[in-house]
Amino acid sequence: MLRFSTAGESHGESLIALVSGMPAGVPIDGARVNRELWRRQQGYGRGGRMRIEQDTAQFLSGVRHGKTIGSPIAIEIENRDWKNWTEILPVETGDPAKHKAVASPRPGHADLAGALKWDFPDARYVLERASARETTSRVAAGAVAKALLLELGIDVASHIVRVGGAELSRPATWAEISALREKNEVLLNCVDEESEARMKAEVDIALRTGDSVGGIFEVVIHGAPAGVGTCANWDERLDGLLAQAVMSLQAVKAVEIGRGVTAAASMGSTVHDSIGYADAPQEGAHTRFTRDHNNAGGIEGGISNGEDIVVRGYLKPISTLRRPLGSVKFDTRELTKAAYERSDVCAVPAAGVAAEAMVALAFGKLVLEKFGGDSLRELKRNYDGYVDQIRAY
Amino acid sequence: MLRFSTAGESHGESLIALVSGMPAGVPIDGARVNRELWRRQQGYGRGGRMRIEQDTAQFLSGVRHGKTIGSPIAIEIENRDWKNWTEILPVETGDPAKHKAVASPRPGHADLAGALKWDFPDARYVLERASARETTSRVAAGAVAKALLLELGIDVASHIVRVGGAELSRPATWAEISALREKNEVLLNCVDEESEARMKAEVDIALRTGDSVGGIFEVVIHGAPAGVGTCANWDERLDGLLAQAVMSLQAVKAVEIGRGVTAAASMGSTVHDSIGYADAPQEGAHTRFTRDHNNAGGIEGGISNGEDIVVRGYLKPISTLRRPLGSVKFDTRELTKAAYERSDVCAVPAAGVAAEAMVALAFGKLVLEKFGGDSLRELKRNYDGYVDQIRAY
Amino acid sequence: MLRFSTAGESHGESLIALVSGMPAGVPIDGARVNRELWRRQQGYGRGGRMRIEQDTAQFLSGVRHGKTIGSPIAIEIENRDWKNWTEILPVETGDPAKHKAVASPRPGHADLAGALKWDFPDARYVLERASARETTSRVAAGAVAKALLLELGIDVASHIVRVGGAELSRPATWAEISALREKNEVLLNCVDEESEARMKAEVDIALRTGDSVGGIFEVVIHGAPAGVGTCANWDERLDGLLAQAVMSLQAVKAVEIGRGVTAAASMGSTVHDSIGYADAPQEGAHTRFTRDHNNAGGIEGGISNGEDIVVRGYLKPISTLRRPLGSVKFDTRELTKAAYERSDVCAVPAAGVAAEAMVALAFGKLVLEKFGGDSLRELKRNYDGYVDQIRAY
Amino acid sequence: MLRFSTAGESHGESLIALVSGMPAGVPIDGARVNRELWRRQQGYGRGGRMRIEQDTAQFLSGVRHGKTIGSPIAIEIENRDWKNWTEILPVETGDPAKHKAVASPRPGHADLAGALKWDFPDARYVLERASARETTSRVAAGAVAKALLLELGIDVASHIVRVGGAELSRPATWAEISALREKNEVLLNCVDEESEARMKAEVDIALRTGDSVGGIFEVVIHGAPAGVGTCANWDERLDGLLAQAVMSLQAVKAVEIGRGVTAAASMGSTVHDSIGYADAPQEGAHTRFTRDHNNAGGIEGGISNGEDIVVRGYLKPISTLRRPLGSVKFDTRELTKAAYERSDVCAVPAAGVAAEAMVALAFGKLVLEKFGGDSLRELKRNYDGYVDQIRAY
Repeated sequence: MLRFSTAGESHGESLIALVSGMPAGVPIDGARVNRELWRRQQGYGRGGRMRIEQDTAQFLSGVRHGKTIGSPIAIEIENRDWKNWTEILPVETGDPAKHKAVASPRPGHADLAGALKWDFPDARYVLERASARETTSRVAAGAVAKALLLELGIDVASHIVRVGGAELSRPATWAEISALREKNEVLLNCVDEESEARMKAEVDIALRTGDSVGGIFEVVIHGAPAGVGTCANWDERLDGLLAQAVMSLQAVKAVEIGRGVTAAASMGSTVHDSIGYADAPQEGAHTRFTRDHNNAGGIEGGISNGEDIVVRGYLKPISTLRRPLGSVKFDTRELTKAAYERSDVCAVPAAGVAAEAMVALAFGKLVLEKFGGDSLRELKRNYDGYVDQIRAY
Repeated sequence: MLRFSTAGESHGESLIALVSGMPAGVPIDGARVNRELWRRQQGYGRGGRMRIEQDTAQFLSGVRHGKTIGSPIAIEIENRDWKNWTEILPVETGDPAKHKAVASPRPGHADLAGALKWDFPDARYVLERASARETTSRVAAGAVAKALLLELGIDVASHIVRVGGAELSRPATWAEISALREKNEVLLNCVDEESEARMKAEVDIALRTGDSVGGIFEVVIHGAPAGVGTCANWDERLDGLLAQAVMSLQAVKAVEIGRGVTAAASMGSTVHDSIGYADAPQEGAHTRFTRDHNNAGGIEGGISNGEDIVVRGYLKPISTLRRPLGSVKFDTRELTKAAYERSDVCAVPAAGVAAEAMVALAFGKLVLEKFGGDSLRELKRNYDGYVDQIRAY
Repeated sequence: MLRFSTAGESHGESLIALVSGMPAGVPIDGARVNRELWRRQQGYGRGGRMRIEQDTAQFLSGVRHGKTIGSPIAIEIENRDWKNWTEILPVETGDPAKHKAVASPRPGHADLAGALKWDFPDARYVLERASARETTSRVAAGAVAKALLLELGIDVASHIVRVGGAELSRPATWAEISALREKNEVLLNCVDEESEARMKAEVDIALRTGDSVGGIFEVVIHGAPAGVGTCANWDERLDGLLAQAVMSLQAVKAVEIGRGVTAAASMGSTVHDSIGYADAPQEGAHTRFTRDHNNAGGIEGGISNGEDIVVRGYLKPISTLRRPLGSVKFDTRELTKAAYERSDVCAVPAAGVAAEAMVALAFGKLVLEKFGGDSLRELKRNYDGYVDQIRAY
Repeated sequence: MLRFSTAGESHGESLIALVSGMPAGVPIDGARVNRELWRRQQGYGRGGRMRIEQDTAQFLSGVRHGKTIGSPIAIEIENRDWKNWTEILPVETGDPAKHKAVASPRPGHADLAGALKWDFPDARYVLERASARETTSRVAAGAVAKALLLELGIDVASHIVRVGGAELSRPATWAEISALREKNEVLLNCVDEESEARMKAEVDIALRTGDSVGGIFEVVIHGAPAGVGTCANWDERLDGLLAQAVMSLQAVKAVEIGRGVTAAASMGSTVHDSIGYADAPQEGAHTRFTRDHNNAGGIEGGISNGEDIVVRGYLKPISTLRRPLGSVKFDTRELTKAAYERSDVCAVPAAGVAAEAMVALAFGKLVLEKFGGDSLRELKRNYDGYVDQIRAY
């Protein structure tokens, strides 16, 4: 079973990602993993932390001679900022006087809820774990899952469809979306220049006014066959697992499959994707069943239906504002301004990259459950056998 | 650990819900469970099946002398329609000639994806399990979880905020939302008459045109303290688990926490809920921390923050239309119309009731993880101890 | 993922087994399932309950036209004794005066620990769930897992190697062990007549003296290839999962893989199974690697090594004696004799049948994790592909 | 939920342990963790690796200012031997010529089963993960769980009851067993000098003859109240979870609770622990229920009964012999001797320390499930409330 977990505080020594259940023999290219970590640090409106950290993944286990060996994969990502925090956040008792309290909870963050939950006098320890810095480990783990899926011809990419009031003005093709990953200059990871310019203007408003701005990212799984996920058990449905994976990302407050939001306001005849049958096998498709559109986002009844799987995440504006909102001092309960910690103004592209990782990990888990395989050779044999089966269906 | 699973085909003998991990000593009122099953069957625009089935929960285990005894609770709900299907869906080999094929996949349903996945010649077996009839077991299991939460003063209710083009015109109070459950005539489970009339008009259009219509339900958890859920592990976050629970419901295609969808189009200063501090303890609140609004939907950083927890589900229009969409015959692949099976035209209120159950089960799991307790007495002692702790925080 | 759970009280209306994750298309023969339930009720020294209950499995879901359909399988087994308990163990509040208390805890049973855990005034509710009657549901679920394994040529059987002081005097062959299942008269399920007679004598002593007697059952998985299970993660090791499965059976207090107990008192050179290589492919073996003996019980490093997998369970004597041991009255705490509830004197053969079920369920889970497959056709294709792979290794 | 996982190869850069679900505020003493790692390296008959590695735990996350903070705890243990393996086991492709193959499988190890499973040409990668070196991470994780339990007055210790043919000649008291941990010279971790001398003689035989020798360790949980674990669900029973935890340790081939092995050969009246009731509260006991002996090993019906919990592990002799057994060359299939890798001759005391860790982790999980609590303060309050409840029972 493909499982992953993360550990690490935002200003601790390092971040850890632990991935287990990968078959042996999957090529892992360190440079490609670091490319994904780099992509997570890009985007117009990112905070100062991104200039401090040039995240690099160090594989401590599970990958030898450039390939997975079937053992758990531990990846460490150093926090370069740690050298400034060794006395503030020591593992040992250390000098409490050097503790850097988060003295008033920041609205929108876990600060207040966490302090109450764990009985902390201030929100420092809450911030350290709740911070989106944690998504760095998720992106490293996701890069391993992407390598697995790619071996089966299944690819995962994301693009931005809204920043604040500015929306992508037209549909995006898979070719456009996947090409974005190769760009070495990332503005707002949008396929359309005109739309991207409007998006940038929204960020500029936030930059000027000490505010922050939200947006919507769309993750697409391309090339997946029908039949992954199930309708048999509520907790094994593909849509439910993808929703958990994406909603679990910091600042995501809504998740949508296909045209989920607009479908709720529509009549059935305008939503459901009629089924047809191609005269001949279709390039890039596993069967000759066709759809006039893909409003279902590639999932029907909790199962992949062979179309592109489309998952959108609605990212609230970052909760830390340079013009902080009203809050309360933890100690005296006097009204004050929320504590300020260096933060982004817009992180929608980065959230999209983190969501690619979570989608790849959630989908990879179901792919291995369906096709099994302890070696890449066995997995591919099983996968090809199934693809032949549905092609001949 | 609070776990639940369901079994049963739509036209099989019966549906089963199995709930384990409940502490002993929780009063379970069979009438109240049946009331929830009744609520799930209501709503303007429901199909004929609702007139056949008066669902009643029969407790086979785990409840004795009106209370839970700490053992797994098995609940059986008879399918009255089964008497018409004994020869069509026999357990034994039976007479294949009597098999009632679903000869062409219905767009939007699991039919095609499931037939490919399980290598079925038609979609009968897929339909039998993928059908929303399965939510009957979820509602029975949810009623048990609701009984647990109610013992701690935590209540769960839902209401409808949109049907097709018609939207609730104003905010709803908890009092209004919770009162809806007592109504013995359920139109569209909306707190506002004028809005409900506009919603009904949308259903009438669908009824007239052989179409179906979607909508949005909102589930509210009222009375929960801060501190349930965590930011420590991605798969134990309250928002992620609620998103999976609700998205796993048939026909739900988007899930939103608080003002998730609109927040993504907003600036931070208009979204985040400033924190204040009441001069004196507040009736119905566990602490004196206050919020000017609840755009976060009661969850920050994956943890409940003490405000009402607000989860919305976006329900696509039912996939079965009396004016079926284009499809293909499974056997000959000729173009045809999608198979028609008796179905609802609008099921948004019913989906809201099913979502209440899923939310109660997901939240109940995290509540027991935080407070432990093998008996209601032990659970309440632990819960009260924590509430005192945060009150004195 | 293959999962199963059970529900039901010993004197409740019925017992439920719920199995999910089975591929579609696996033939399920109701008679064969009932045969397993019958086998569980046999054995010299069983109590009166066996004459009341002729257990029959009723499939409520998941099996149609004689085959699995990929949906969760719910099996109900009626308790014929229920008609005598409807007023004693009502689901509703009922008449407390008719409650049949277990007034003093029986040493060896969960009575005292359970009453303290769940804060019960007596042990009735504990007994109802802790009773070995629960293994009936496990055997029904195990019969489904056995049907799956048999499709891959993997078979599971058990025999008795010790009752009290009497031990099986010689090794048993797989042919002998598997043949025991066809016997319609079951004494003590031992392959050797002379040894079985000595075992019977032990039971007679217990019968005569109002005592009970323990023993050892051995479960063998025959025909499994190397490679199931893993050394990569402690909680996915085959030996650990089999140990949990067997130790979780009522009255089992030790579990052994291969010659585990005697190996601990030995030198390595006398224990480890040297490896050889056959000149030609071997009938019934997946590879040409050979072993001079199978002290490892078919598992090395948590992975099946291609030899028979041998798991022994050490069953303590039944805790209920007709000559009850010292106990204490729950209410007054006066010293008294342990409560007596009709019980077996020797249940080792029955425990062996229950252990077959648990071993089949635990091994079936790992088999599906390795080979995947949503239909029997897909599973067999993947399995055969792997067997060809290791044959050509 | 208390969860833990490990990663790392035996000759890789480092070993990782990841523990999540710990409440905040539990004091963690790095020296104490290192003491446990030291204990794991002791014992007469250990191999040369122990002189290379002075294992030290480095906390990367989850512990700040000497206490847990509720976040996942990542611990790294450096492999000092790594400097000799950087080119043999590179993460990158590296120079295949420097690969150090395990050219013939060692009987008793995962070598052959793993090579077949993962389709490796030799057993290097299998050995790297299957090696007992992995228990170092388990011991580090276990030290964290022990710190949690100790806060509740629950202690875990182990001692050796058999090495080869030499058995402990008398019962051991908890005081003796727990005192062993303070010894700075560890022979065979036996409470009785005369018995230990006989055990040493067994190791000497093995040393002299190039052999290895097995043994039995006994782990005791002291101070646990009744009520942890359950009989309600097979996979939540304390005995099953302890059996999996201990059997999952390298080289363990049998697990016993209390007098499990001998009970199977006995009559009930000689096995079950009669129940009495003390006139007055008993020092060190949570209730006044007494037992004349503890053959049940502190567990009845899968639930702790308040007595010491006694779990024994039967360790087979180490599979690597300096006088290697017969094997086969992976490449040519010629008969040869098993590959030799530096190894212990007797590791029973070390296995006992690793088993303490696994027992503490398994028991800690159930303790937190029963008592909940996100802070040590909340956990203690809940625990004390329960202890008062059963004291007043």
